[in-house]
Amino acid sequence: MEFLKKGFTHDDLLRIDDKDLPLLADEVRALIIDTVKKNGGHLGSSLGVVELTIAMLKVFDPFNDRIIFDVGHQSYPYKILTDRFDKFQTLRLKDGISGFPRRSESPCDHFNTGHSSTSISAALGYAKARDLLGEKRNVIAFIGDASLINGLSFEALNYVQETNTKIIIILNDNRHSISNRIGGFSNMLAGLSANTCYRRIKNFARRNSGVKWAGRFEKCRDFLKMILKPHNLFDQVGINYWGPFDGHDIKNTVKILELAKNYYKPVILHFNTVKGKGLPEAEENPTKYHQVSPSGEIKSRTWSEAASEIAEELAMKDERIVCFTAAMSTGVKLEKFSKIFPDRFFDVGIAESHMLTMAAGLAAGGMRPWVFIYSTFLQRAMDQLMHDIALQNLPVVIMVDRAGLSGSDGDTHQGLLDITWGRSVPNLEIYAPCDEDSLKDSMIKASKRNGPTLIRYPRGKIPPEKISVDINDEGIAKIYDGHKWALLGHGASVETMLKVRNMAENQGIDVPAVYDVRRVKPLDMKVIDEILGKYQAVSVLEENYLFGGFGEALGAVIAEKGCNVKLMRFGIPDVCVKHATQKEQRELYGLTPENVLTQYKNNYYEK
Amino acid sequence: MEFLKKGFTHDDLLRIDDKDLPLLADEVRALIIDTVKKNGGHLGSSLGVVELTIAMLKVFDPFNDRIIFDVGHQSYPYKILTDRFDKFQTLRLKDGISGFPRRSESPCDHFNTGHSSTSISAALGYAKARDLLGEKRNVIAFIGDASLINGLSFEALNYVQETNTKIIIILNDNRHSISNRIGGFSNMLAGLSANTCYRRIKNFARRNSGVKWAGRFEKCRDFLKMILKPHNLFDQVGINYWGPFDGHDIKNTVKILELAKNYYKPVILHFNTVKGKGLPEAEENPTKYHQVSPSGEIKSRTWSEAASEIAEELAMKDERIVCFTAAMSTGVKLEKFSKIFPDRFFDVGIAESHMLTMAAGLAAGGMRPWVFIYSTFLQRAMDQLMHDIALQNLPVVIMVDRAGLSGSDGDTHQGLLDITWGRSVPNLEIYAPCDEDSLKDSMIKASKRNGPTLIRYPRGKIPPEKISVDINDEGIAKIYDGHKWALLGHGASVETMLKVRNMAENQGIDVPAVYDVRRVKPLDMKVIDEILGKYQAVSVLEENYLFGGFGEALGAVIAEKGCNVKLMRFGIPDVCVKHATQKEQRELYGLTPENVLTQYKNNYYEK
Repeated sequence: MEFLKKGFTHDDLLRIDDKDLPLLADEVRALIIDTVKKNGGHLGSSLGVVELTIAMLKVFDPFNDRIIFDVGHQSYPYKILTDRFDKFQTLRLKDGISGFPRRSESPCDHFNTGHSSTSISAALGYAKARDLLGEKRNVIAFIGDASLINGLSFEALNYVQETNTKIIIILNDNRHSISNRIGGFSNMLAGLSANTCYRRIKNFARRNSGVKWAGRFEKCRDFLKMILKPHNLFDQVGINYWGPFDGHDIKNTVKILELAKNYYKPVILHFNTVKGKGLPEAEENPTKYHQVSPSGEIKSRTWSEAASEIAEELAMKDERIVCFTAAMSTGVKLEKFSKIFPDRFFDVGIAESHMLTMAAGLAAGGMRPWVFIYSTFLQRAMDQLMHDIALQNLPVVIMVDRAGLSGSDGDTHQGLLDITWGRSVPNLEIYAPCDEDSLKDSMIKASKRNGPTLIRYPRGKIPPEKISVDINDEGIAKIYDGHKWALLGHGASVETMLKVRNMAENQGIDVPAVYDVRRVKPLDMKVIDEILGKYQAVSVLEENYLFGGFGEALGAVIAEKGCNVKLMRFGIPDVCVKHATQKEQRELYGLTPENVLTQYKNNYYEK
Repeated sequence: MEFLKKGFTHDDLLRIDDKDLPLLADEVRALIIDTVKKNGGHLGSSLGVVELTIAMLKVFDPFNDRIIFDVGHQSYPYKILTDRFDKFQTLRLKDGISGFPRRSESPCDHFNTGHSSTSISAALGYAKARDLLGEKRNVIAFIGDASLINGLSFEALNYVQETNTKIIIILNDNRHSISNRIGGFSNMLAGLSANTCYRRIKNFARRNSGVKWAGRFEKCRDFLKMILKPHNLFDQVGINYWGPFDGHDIKNTVKILELAKNYYKPVILHFNTVKGKGLPEAEENPTKYHQVSPSGEIKSRTWSEAASEIAEELAMKDERIVCFTAAMSTGVKLEKFSKIFPDRFFDVGIAESHMLTMAAGLAAGGMRPWVFIYSTFLQRAMDQLMHDIALQNLPVVIMVDRAGLSGSDGDTHQGLLDITWGRSVPNLEIYAPCDEDSLKDSMIKASKRNGPTLIRYPRGKIPPEKISVDINDEGIAKIYDGHKWALLGHGASVETMLKVRNMAENQGIDVPAVYDVRRVKPLDMKVIDEILGKYQAVSVLEENYLFGGFGEALGAVIAEKGCNVKLMRFGIPDVCVKHATQKEQRELYGLTPENVLTQYKNNYYEK
């Protein structure tokens, strides 16, 4: 490599000659491909914005200006070029750099992201703070076309003109959501991209170099624009629209950004880019290369695969079943379902709130909607779960994927709130199966309910062997009996509990009973009563925040009944869970068989 | 009254001669004004849609078609005219009819509402259910202009063309949110309303009566439309836009609705109406008459008034403080603040999610944002609280108004989730003050924190006398000492606990200690340890769901420590709380001094 060497800084970038910038782009691209193949991560989005990022870093000062990446999938080139080249190989590893912008990581990361569509709101906030504090900074929201259709972005766009402040919105239009782009809005963008008439302005800009001409250009542009460019939503909500431009042309992009920087009004700059640019296989199949697993990772059957196949089976028998995803059909493995039942499949785009309310409408109309959603994104639709589904007791099934500790995407992507937030929602039943049989059992039970059900399951591979025991209507299944000590837990914790039992057996100490709390709500009070009448100590394991989890619920029962039972709880304390592997995260928070056994030995084991 | 008499049904409406419909409108209006003055309720919106509703009920069959009112503020005329005239006097009273559409109340109410912007999503769901089940029905979303700017509506609008189904969106444009309309979108609507060119279509429709002409009309309309009408967002996302029309002209409205019914594509019908129509004072001051309190209700200082005045005081001293509301400046009493600090006040419209993320941006930029929001509407922004504010540990203060039981707005408006959902959010501190002094103390503490704080306070009047005791850094304040029994609670429950103590004293039984749990998170473990070491029985009172509340947290502590303390919990069980007064709701769920004392006597009192 020629430019990227140890100690590369943003200042070094500024010293590179304009004509050499495409070479720098090649180096950045090669580094990203190399690192992501090793560590896993978001590939396509970052490859698509290398030139845009270089141009942006030529025009704006990442230390003083405020640059907010929406979602943050596309922030790798920015990280490399803002003094993090040396650390980039640690991407997504424990104690390494995050796969998303993190303020704690660099003074150039100005707003933490991970979920989509926050950038325009945050930019407006930063801009008003600047105005009120009398500072001088540029504020830039860098957003993809898919993120624009989320309601949060629209609320922010609608509010721009009320704020009387200046922000620059860089629209990175790669014509892809994580999967394909959805909705009428995308057609509008496509229409803008196809428009040739407005290119005159673009060419005008191309012919005239940035700052020097800015004043003159400004004067005639508003008039020209009025005549030439197509009507679009942005103008209608009071934001100047310029574009479309080629996002891979660094030289022209620098000029456009200079013009925008010196313009006096909020402006949206529409750049067309190619997702996966520079890696032919990623350009051809952008959905597959959106996120990449580390090479060498053994592929085995995942929870998502099992869940979607069971959904297919159930849908064969029940024509009322329809399935929903919010731009995650690859992640939740609904591609096959969408092909078998094209009329009964809905990908709404990144629009989780709408998804749940539309599902409520379908249920009210006599159908049986199943919503597949990552636990972390369900946070975006909690009011819709409460207000539209639960209060009306509608038969919607929420399939909560990636529940619990979810690994290297980091703190914005953990699934640690669904049990707590779900338990307090009336009419909602909650299942947390531990293997494929219990997953299927939960899904069958949900399909027969005349009310809403939430089924949460972990990220990653599903246990290859059956570990659950069959149950009828009970919510808690006894897998093993014991004498003094019982283990209670759900989901991924059941495997851990079985290991605790084995270790205890091997070490010759109290062999614990093992209870699979498959239905977390409502609790099976008959079995709970038996447990509290029989054991002296109970350990509860769960991959959820301790606050409001199953462990607290059990604690309240023990304290109300005045049982003489000692409770030990294992779960996630009041922290933000940083990126690391799931295994490392479990070790960090004591959700390991070793720790559960040690705590019992230290506290309650009498020799 | 001539038309509205005992037993009036929808069939009676259909028999009324067209020329007499304006007289019916007058009668409906008089009944609404009369009833709302007695019972309280939403006045302006319902008065504005009387004619629109009559026309809609002429054209559509409320028993077979699916009519979904957005929010539902405007559903009173519909209720009166769909077989509920006889019961209308019980509006919002316990066991009476709800102030919002409720499926349990009538076969003509098709989707429960209360929060805004759900109607288009729900209508799409109903329409797809109809298509898949092979039914024949019209599906109508009836939505106000203020609800349209919420992100949920936009997500649904964007998705309309993907669904390949037919819905009719009736846009009731009264140019008012609950307060004034916000944002660029409203300017676009105003532009459409002012457009005269497109009126030609309107006139064409006016001249040609409905169904008979529909076919011919259809053929030329698309072409005409293309030429004549202004570009707007709706067309851009693939929804035909017709309008604007006069929503008070019943005859013409019937024709337009007939045309829309027979049209083959999704269509949005834009009607201009006057909020408060027919009541001069409401027409003049639509914000004041949006919601009306029952006449004779004694006005005394409310929690909202106290909170906003303290915010003014703090903002005088700290220039970094800015305040936010989402279209509720009247409800949360920020009108005065907005006049004193116009540059430091933001009304974002009904856009709760955007509000929290923009506040996060301001905080990241060095300001101290205070967000005033009803507890029930905070449900709309939980991900923004978690993802944008808490994970970044930003100093945003969330002032949660109407927390706890909130009275006659019914199940969609209770504030029973904020403690449970908030407790599991890392970095967030939660306060629940019980009087003005402790409110001020909480707000001062929040203003000094370098992290997010949630302060929840009840609906209604604040205790006129001081009942709290001063504390320093502790989170739990002992108001009275005791021997065997302690009462712990927060917020509105503190007053109840003091009454329990008085009653116990009068009845000569164990006089309980009273602890004010002002800071619900993090819990003051030093004081909790003292309590658990001293008392044999502890009663916890809270106006929140029992699931994940303070009571469960305390139960887990008791069970983990193995204390010999009996716990009694008083809060809201796993139910949907129906409309009634706050007093009636407290009685229903046992949050009364009598019940707390009785439970103690029955279970733990030894003579």
